[in-house]
Amino acid sequence: MARPVEAEGISRRDLVAMSEAGESRARSDFVAVEEPLEIRVDGETVAVTMRTPGQDADLALGFLFAEGIIAGPDDVGSVAHCGHPGEEGYGNVVEVRSAGGHRIDPERVLEGARWSTTTSACGVCGRRSIDGLLSRCAPLAREGRLAPEQVVRAMARLSAAQPIFARTGGLHASAVFDADGEVLASAEDVGRHNAVDKAVGSLLRGRQLGVARPLGPRPALLAVSGRASFEIVQKATAARIPVVASVSAPSSLAVDLAAGAGLTLVGFARGDRFNVYANAWRLGGSAAAEPALPAATGRTDP
Amino acid sequence: MARPVEAEGISRRDLVAMSEAGESRARSDFVAVEEPLEIRVDGETVAVTMRTPGQDADLALGFLFAEGIIAGPDDVGSVAHCGHPGEEGYGNVVEVRSAGGHRIDPERVLEGARWSTTTSACGVCGRRSIDGLLSRCAPLAREGRLAPEQVVRAMARLSAAQPIFARTGGLHASAVFDADGEVLASAEDVGRHNAVDKAVGSLLRGRQLGVARPLGPRPALLAVSGRASFEIVQKATAARIPVVASVSAPSSLAVDLAAGAGLTLVGFARGDRFNVYANAWRLGGSAAAEPALPAATGRTDP
Repeated sequence: MARPVEAEGISRRDLVAMSEAGESRARSDFVAVEEPLEIRVDGETVAVTMRTPGQDADLALGFLFAEGIIAGPDDVGSVAHCGHPGEEGYGNVVEVRSAGGHRIDPERVLEGARWSTTTSACGVCGRRSIDGLLSRCAPLAREGRLAPEQVVRAMARLSAAQPIFARTGGLHASAVFDADGEVLASAEDVGRHNAVDKAVGSLLRGRQLGVARPLGPRPALLAVSGRASFEIVQKATAARIPVVASVSAPSSLAVDLAAGAGLTLVGFARGDRFNVYANAWRLGGSAAAEPALPAATGRTDP
Repeated sequence: MARPVEAEGISRRDLVAMSEAGESRARSDFVAVEEPLEIRVDGETVAVTMRTPGQDADLALGFLFAEGIIAGPDDVGSVAHCGHPGEEGYGNVVEVRSAGGHRIDPERVLEGARWSTTTSACGVCGRRSIDGLLSRCAPLAREGRLAPEQVVRAMARLSAAQPIFARTGGLHASAVFDADGEVLASAEDVGRHNAVDKAVGSLLRGRQLGVARPLGPRPALLAVSGRASFEIVQKATAARIPVVASVSAPSSLAVDLAAGAGLTLVGFARGDRFNVYANAWRLGGSAAAEPALPAATGRTDP
């Protein structure tokens, strides 16, 4: 699943370009790299954020400054990646050390988020984030096929289900569809992740998810208005929704998680075209670039 | 600063519509509401997220499910807002109670964020978030005027400074400009907030910020590619950057913080036009809708 990173911040992934009519073509394209960064102050973990590698020292300093943990550069003695090049996850932990005579106090965090997990190891990496999630959630079953036109129709209905966006231009939307294209739940929020949590929470309340005998039709597709990041695919995996479609770009880690979780990840779904970054067989693309699958499953008419 | 909410999720704010040529017109428009939501499980704070009010029970359930804290609706006895209608911050704390015979364990959070601040009060509200920040950061000085064309030029240069976006379509950008329109720092990241932290961190490392005698030209404008949310304005306030310009919509709390912090907030900066949601006097708009300012300051040629 891990592919070589072409340049800092960019990585190449295979995809299948599809149309509503079912045409499909195997390609590859660059995606933005998303990896966790753990920020430590004098050995203590202050935050873990999903970020694009590069300018990590700047990110750590800017974060600590915005949170009021440092007042300026004179509080800081050194900023460096933890561990050694070549080790797994190297480059994903930044150690900020207090300057001599100073003592940076992470308790100065103003209403700040703290991560409960503190490890002495230097490694935090996307690979491990994926393994951690998959140890909790089994990969999705090899079912849940949809016609490509279902993706196109869902994205069209997503914009129709955005009453607040229409008036403010300022919100993200999410909607969950069944295999017949009916909307089971939808939500809007300033946060992409919140819009997904709201829609999934609505299904939980309706006992359509998270119970031994779910009520009503099963969720088949999650459509989101923003980018497809790791956390969006994580939430869909936890909710066992087999297809995620986004109007915008996926991140590297979103693609890798989707591939590992057996989830079909669609990006750049605009007009009657879209790209499938993982498990294209579910949409019947004959160019489905999933070498691990028997050829027949890549050619089934939906 | 607080205005009545017109409908759940939407609130009206005054703005000044401006053009590169300096034309300006006072208007008002709807913005998406952004307010903190604290999620508690059996009295313990598990998370605080900035969200758009509405479907709060769904948001809490969906979040707890995605984090693996609840396995389904049967773990939950009740979900309700804490406190009483009419109290300050009412509606911004959701209490999730375990079902009889079950015990929801927040320690099940998978690599989850925990908030270190736990209060027994029910009130968490945007107003208090603003007050908390302003108690730490004095409002910005009444200086830092810019010509409207500086805003237009900065946004044009922002897109030029997005090498990874150009190849992936998947990143947010930020750039800090001085009063002459020179780029002092720029960054790209999958996270809007990270892109700002990186640019500010770079200025900190260069001792252009956060020291008694900053080196080089002073930061005058922060340009961001995404929406202007509370946290973006918070980071600019902490870094004492007097103007924030976004290509997209601001949230209600971003507008309110900018107004209180004396920061000029520009949204929908596209082509040669943009909207100014707070402190328009700094861009010389003659229609600057800032009644607290003496009329003269709203008419100064930049």
